[in-house]
Amino acid sequence: MLNFRLIDPLIELALVEDVGSGDITTQSTIENTANAKGTIVVQNGGVIAGLPIAKRVFGKIDPFLQFRTLVKDGESVQSMTPIASAEGAATSILTAERIVLNFLQRLSGTATLTSQFVTATKGYPVKIVDTRKTTAGWRTIQKYAVRVGGGYNHRFGLYDGILIKDNHIIAAGGVAQAMERARSAAPHTSKIEIEVETLDQVEEALQAKADILLFDNMPVNLMEAAVAKVAGRAITEASGGMTLDKVEAVASTGVDLISVGALTHSAIPLDISLDLEIV
Amino acid sequence: MLNFRLIDPLIELALVEDVGSGDITTQSTIENTANAKGTIVVQNGGVIAGLPIAKRVFGKIDPFLQFRTLVKDGESVQSMTPIASAEGAATSILTAERIVLNFLQRLSGTATLTSQFVTATKGYPVKIVDTRKTTAGWRTIQKYAVRVGGGYNHRFGLYDGILIKDNHIIAAGGVAQAMERARSAAPHTSKIEIEVETLDQVEEALQAKADILLFDNMPVNLMEAAVAKVAGRAITEASGGMTLDKVEAVASTGVDLISVGALTHSAIPLDISLDLEIV
Amino acid sequence: MLNFRLIDPLIELALVEDVGSGDITTQSTIENTANAKGTIVVQNGGVIAGLPIAKRVFGKIDPFLQFRTLVKDGESVQSMTPIASAEGAATSILTAERIVLNFLQRLSGTATLTSQFVTATKGYPVKIVDTRKTTAGWRTIQKYAVRVGGGYNHRFGLYDGILIKDNHIIAAGGVAQAMERARSAAPHTSKIEIEVETLDQVEEALQAKADILLFDNMPVNLMEAAVAKVAGRAITEASGGMTLDKVEAVASTGVDLISVGALTHSAIPLDISLDLEIV
Amino acid sequence: MLNFRLIDPLIELALVEDVGSGDITTQSTIENTANAKGTIVVQNGGVIAGLPIAKRVFGKIDPFLQFRTLVKDGESVQSMTPIASAEGAATSILTAERIVLNFLQRLSGTATLTSQFVTATKGYPVKIVDTRKTTAGWRTIQKYAVRVGGGYNHRFGLYDGILIKDNHIIAAGGVAQAMERARSAAPHTSKIEIEVETLDQVEEALQAKADILLFDNMPVNLMEAAVAKVAGRAITEASGGMTLDKVEAVASTGVDLISVGALTHSAIPLDISLDLEIV
Amino acid sequence: MLNFRLIDPLIELALVEDVGSGDITTQSTIENTANAKGTIVVQNGGVIAGLPIAKRVFGKIDPFLQFRTLVKDGESVQSMTPIASAEGAATSILTAERIVLNFLQRLSGTATLTSQFVTATKGYPVKIVDTRKTTAGWRTIQKYAVRVGGGYNHRFGLYDGILIKDNHIIAAGGVAQAMERARSAAPHTSKIEIEVETLDQVEEALQAKADILLFDNMPVNLMEAAVAKVAGRAITEASGGMTLDKVEAVASTGVDLISVGALTHSAIPLDISLDLEIV
Amino acid sequence: MLNFRLIDPLIELALVEDVGSGDITTQSTIENTANAKGTIVVQNGGVIAGLPIAKRVFGKIDPFLQFRTLVKDGESVQSMTPIASAEGAATSILTAERIVLNFLQRLSGTATLTSQFVTATKGYPVKIVDTRKTTAGWRTIQKYAVRVGGGYNHRFGLYDGILIKDNHIIAAGGVAQAMERARSAAPHTSKIEIEVETLDQVEEALQAKADILLFDNMPVNLMEAAVAKVAGRAITEASGGMTLDKVEAVASTGVDLISVGALTHSAIPLDISLDLEIV
Repeated sequence: MLNFRLIDPLIELALVEDVGSGDITTQSTIENTANAKGTIVVQNGGVIAGLPIAKRVFGKIDPFLQFRTLVKDGESVQSMTPIASAEGAATSILTAERIVLNFLQRLSGTATLTSQFVTATKGYPVKIVDTRKTTAGWRTIQKYAVRVGGGYNHRFGLYDGILIKDNHIIAAGGVAQAMERARSAAPHTSKIEIEVETLDQVEEALQAKADILLFDNMPVNLMEAAVAKVAGRAITEASGGMTLDKVEAVASTGVDLISVGALTHSAIPLDISLDLEIV
Repeated sequence: MLNFRLIDPLIELALVEDVGSGDITTQSTIENTANAKGTIVVQNGGVIAGLPIAKRVFGKIDPFLQFRTLVKDGESVQSMTPIASAEGAATSILTAERIVLNFLQRLSGTATLTSQFVTATKGYPVKIVDTRKTTAGWRTIQKYAVRVGGGYNHRFGLYDGILIKDNHIIAAGGVAQAMERARSAAPHTSKIEIEVETLDQVEEALQAKADILLFDNMPVNLMEAAVAKVAGRAITEASGGMTLDKVEAVASTGVDLISVGALTHSAIPLDISLDLEIV
Repeated sequence: MLNFRLIDPLIELALVEDVGSGDITTQSTIENTANAKGTIVVQNGGVIAGLPIAKRVFGKIDPFLQFRTLVKDGESVQSMTPIASAEGAATSILTAERIVLNFLQRLSGTATLTSQFVTATKGYPVKIVDTRKTTAGWRTIQKYAVRVGGGYNHRFGLYDGILIKDNHIIAAGGVAQAMERARSAAPHTSKIEIEVETLDQVEEALQAKADILLFDNMPVNLMEAAVAKVAGRAITEASGGMTLDKVEAVASTGVDLISVGALTHSAIPLDISLDLEIV
Repeated sequence: MLNFRLIDPLIELALVEDVGSGDITTQSTIENTANAKGTIVVQNGGVIAGLPIAKRVFGKIDPFLQFRTLVKDGESVQSMTPIASAEGAATSILTAERIVLNFLQRLSGTATLTSQFVTATKGYPVKIVDTRKTTAGWRTIQKYAVRVGGGYNHRFGLYDGILIKDNHIIAAGGVAQAMERARSAAPHTSKIEIEVETLDQVEEALQAKADILLFDNMPVNLMEAAVAKVAGRAITEASGGMTLDKVEAVASTGVDLISVGALTHSAIPLDISLDLEIV
Repeated sequence: MLNFRLIDPLIELALVEDVGSGDITTQSTIENTANAKGTIVVQNGGVIAGLPIAKRVFGKIDPFLQFRTLVKDGESVQSMTPIASAEGAATSILTAERIVLNFLQRLSGTATLTSQFVTATKGYPVKIVDTRKTTAGWRTIQKYAVRVGGGYNHRFGLYDGILIKDNHIIAAGGVAQAMERARSAAPHTSKIEIEVETLDQVEEALQAKADILLFDNMPVNLMEAAVAKVAGRAITEASGGMTLDKVEAVASTGVDLISVGALTHSAIPLDISLDLEIV
Repeated sequence: MLNFRLIDPLIELALVEDVGSGDITTQSTIENTANAKGTIVVQNGGVIAGLPIAKRVFGKIDPFLQFRTLVKDGESVQSMTPIASAEGAATSILTAERIVLNFLQRLSGTATLTSQFVTATKGYPVKIVDTRKTTAGWRTIQKYAVRVGGGYNHRFGLYDGILIKDNHIIAAGGVAQAMERARSAAPHTSKIEIEVETLDQVEEALQAKADILLFDNMPVNLMEAAVAKVAGRAITEASGGMTLDKVEAVASTGVDLISVGALTHSAIPLDISLDLEIV
């Protein structure tokens, strides 16, 4: 499910920037021969994501470490739950500790927040999807964390989906013009999604046979009217400053998808730590 | 002040993951010959950080874009302030938009939060410093954003500073043993910092001639006692779950440094957008 | 139109494998100070593609060379037409010669063949498209050559379009099962294309709301029946061993697209050479 | 026999350009747990080349696939011969399929064509050799395919052999001048090869003690005279627009080597496909 | 003790520059199936360093070679001592031979010279340390060889230690100004070392609370006076044109450290060769 | 004359290992706005090599520095000669200083030693050539320094010249067997050089039509006999522990080439420093 070809470059950056020419604290204070077991423990509850990446980091620092997972990515755990352990050279565990935690905390934060949005819209036929508001270098793994949390992925980048936004409409000269150009020039395998803000634009986009309409920052009642006007002729997506407070109201409008930038730009990291014992 | 040798690999990852084989929306909807001006506007107030990175991203996508800054990194701006503009091919500006905003929003979020911690401790002879709880790949630029916000940098990685933490003490067999090992094996150019949690450990560390004491998660009154016991014989640093609410109380204990993980792991991105007009 | 971020790695491979530690013939026989003009001449007629890549190669070998194009990519030229020139150090021109010609010959071969397919189907509302049967490392530039020759691009890779082929249908257990899975799991921005070989499969695919049908190796009369059955309910694409001889008959069936693997796997390189004169 | 240090960069380019952020068709339609066997079958007869590269590609996509070869590189097979199989996760086999076939088809095309030239010159003491007219990035593996087909390799690049061609002669001011410069400046370990077009140039080159003469585009009767004039004083090589039709006549002139650009620029790919069955 | 993440890039450069497209001598003269044992023998005595790197090089060229060490890095051996062997394909051993020897000879040369300096100062409480006068690309492994020879490492680069040298003092306007700036701007984890040449500068530096004084090219009697003046208030380091002849006199002044550029810039390589026998 | 494509990777390694996350001394002590001029001065006389590399390093650290050369590579200078200067930001000059000097000192050392060997053999028709006993990563620039010093280059690596050494002869089963294999398998463009140690081996190699004979560690009188026996039928090269003391005697034997490993493994670096003045 995770293609490390896309993730290794980020892990390498993390190793270079943190370990660099060596962990001088660990080298100065710990014997090379000391063995230890590090247990990774979640301090407060949440949905776990990133264990395969934790394993990868430990393995790059020391291929002889024994890494064991005690839960799986996607599991919701209570506070003080041990989720994985690494056993082997104490020096290796200590050198890897912070990089591993930095990944696990952020990815679990995203999975947890995604899960909260999914729960908040339970019962509605709607998918929670992510956006391109990801952290540079983290696109692949943040989108993975969204899936782990029960969400779905929107397009991966500018290359695999057409989404005509306000600035494209401005540059093209209007909804109709943008749709017309897209119709003739876009790959025949791509659907065309377009951002609309008013009922007139909804109409215009439907006339132009848009496949998907993105309702950007629409008030809930306007969105209801827009969904009604669409009447199943296109897929509908709600977007814009989505919060846990208002997401159920949005879901109740009948939109097919709700995209949430906060999943990847404002999720609070889960508090996770590593407890060491000498073995 | 920014060494792009260390930053370009992250920007390249961002370009690969977002643009990949091409921005099919922009290519389908906008003429190559259309010229535009994109103005980057801060929606809510804060301290700006990342403009040189924005310039670098625009330049990598299209070296012919004219990038102009209207404020400087480190300036505190009101909501709705234009902070920079890019002028040139509309297609280039649109392709760069999200990557640029993703950098600016997060870095300005860190600078803004740093600035709030600095303000909250104004009047105390204390420095706000960062930690290694940074986002993988972002170490260099997040530490830059901390400086831009008025903070100071702790060590850059495991390679350039000795900080003996709880797990090292466990592995070494105690504060005294860890300090003794470090004394004989550490580079002569490095000071030795050690984490202490009790007054006894403070005493033990001072006996062992620690240069810097890190008070980890100490209650404020205990920290006061610890600072008093140190009595200038070592540099003192407070750490652990630091928030804007409690930082002034911590500063009032007389510690020399307060390290704040939240600066880089939990800063809320500034809301920044790009307005396009055809020129 | 060409993103060199995707092309430079291939050019670098070409330089390493051909020039390596140095062009010992040129270094041994030509003065560093000798200036020359190399004129690139097409020996037999065809459609030119690859001039920006030629320029890039010359520039990497010697940024001081003056490169001038005498025609543009996409132009159809007669035999013995000069299409570009490079002027400057004779040594640089000679070192670059073969790499430049290797690119131009193959890309112009693809553009020329594409153009022949386009001409052969003139008058029919059909697009000639490429396939993934490209040369490793050359995907970006071969697809560019197809566009230059008047064709259109199918998906760029496995990541930006859904095309359910015979082996997927086998693995999924049939057309209906494959379509059903794709419907629920595919990104909402992607259309779904599926390969069909019989009229029953056409019916099955339409029932399952396929967006695009790929008629693989269908005899022309069967394809006509298939197009008739589809009746505009899906986009139709013909594929399989397409040749210049039979393409018009295929176009006459009314399919929307004809994909031609030969464009990128069997185009004969145009005969192009470089004439040197000392200046 | 194959140094993957030189080949892996090309395979990586192929994986990036084709798989990119993921094979969305396979991911959408096939269970991760489905196991399959893919058998690679040659549709029409020829000489096989590239099986170690096929193995390498499968291994990079999924190290758990079991790859078995049923023939060896260099074997001549009949149509409909299975040549190798891969067994394991159906998703991995499907993702690798096209990249593997793209390599095998082209390399086997080159091996087959080489073998045809070797057969056509059977009985003559002549070697069929390749040229630098290779596909960018493919130099190492195309030259390998030539050897597999029974041919020999000319120099690998500009760095490991001296071949003074027409443009060098022009720039140096004549055959004698070019030879004289090469004599004094070339590495003492390199023979010197020079292109000649007339009997006078043959004489001139022999006077200058050329080690190897390249007869470029010489008519057969002129070549015979040239070989006679050389009389064993130099190695002789025929070159220029070599075809299967005329190669025997060229061999009959007594030249030592015949170089054939078509081996690497115009070989038609062998038709090879992958049959999948669920296991 | 050796982090190959930092060393592999250098080994890769060595393989590319030496092996490149292939070892044509070995390929031409030796059967692929021939097995051999290569024994690495020290011709003249010295301290061995670099065996793990030798192993790494052999492994990169042929993972099936059996590499065995007969001594350990840091051991002092007599002339004609076998120190390691590699067994397996004769072709692989021959291709690796020179690269392996080039590493072993130079690193053992550094370890041997370091060991001579350590021996020459035996009995004095002083550490022999290296400098940044290392060979480009070799920093990590040369510093390792210094440790292996019984020496200690000074800072690894410009990033992990503060050393204010004459040119910094010139640019800052004097010892006091340079120290003052450093005090306020340097990371709190770094000690501050400063170069001094006169007793006045020693005084000035001590006033400014320098942690370490570097006596650059001071005559021995002046250095004695300087050590006396410091009187334990700072760490002291002697530097400048250090030779085996004069190092004991320098040690007798009571300095804490003596840094020796010659360890890495002028150590004579140990004479080491590889003896092959067919097995 | 220098191909930076082959040199930049080494320079990048040097920058990473020395500068890493930043020059904390310079950043702490010098104003960003201070301008300076650094003059590079040779302390003792010698032949200069490496100025284009010095320029390249300065340019990578700061493209705005003005670099001027006062002599050219290959010039022989007296002690205390300024050879180049860099003007611009003081911080940039200080950060670059050591890396630049490390290159210049070693390369000038090699050029100087080469020049001494050339001088010592003046009047004899012999070329001084280098070996593969170069420093890992430095092959290209050390061979350049040899040329700058008046020497010639032997093969660049294992890929561009055939040199059958003692271990190849052992593995092949003798001089005749090794030559026979090489004759049939080596590229037709390569001469064949073989190491011989006795007059019998000389005879055997000549019988086998070796192009070049390498006399390895032969006493001078034996070498004289060997040259006499060869009598112009092959190129002759002397090798093995060559020193300035004995090189003239070797040259007097009449050999064509003398290869000297010491040029690249034991040249003492020239003493070169950088003087800074504020401007």
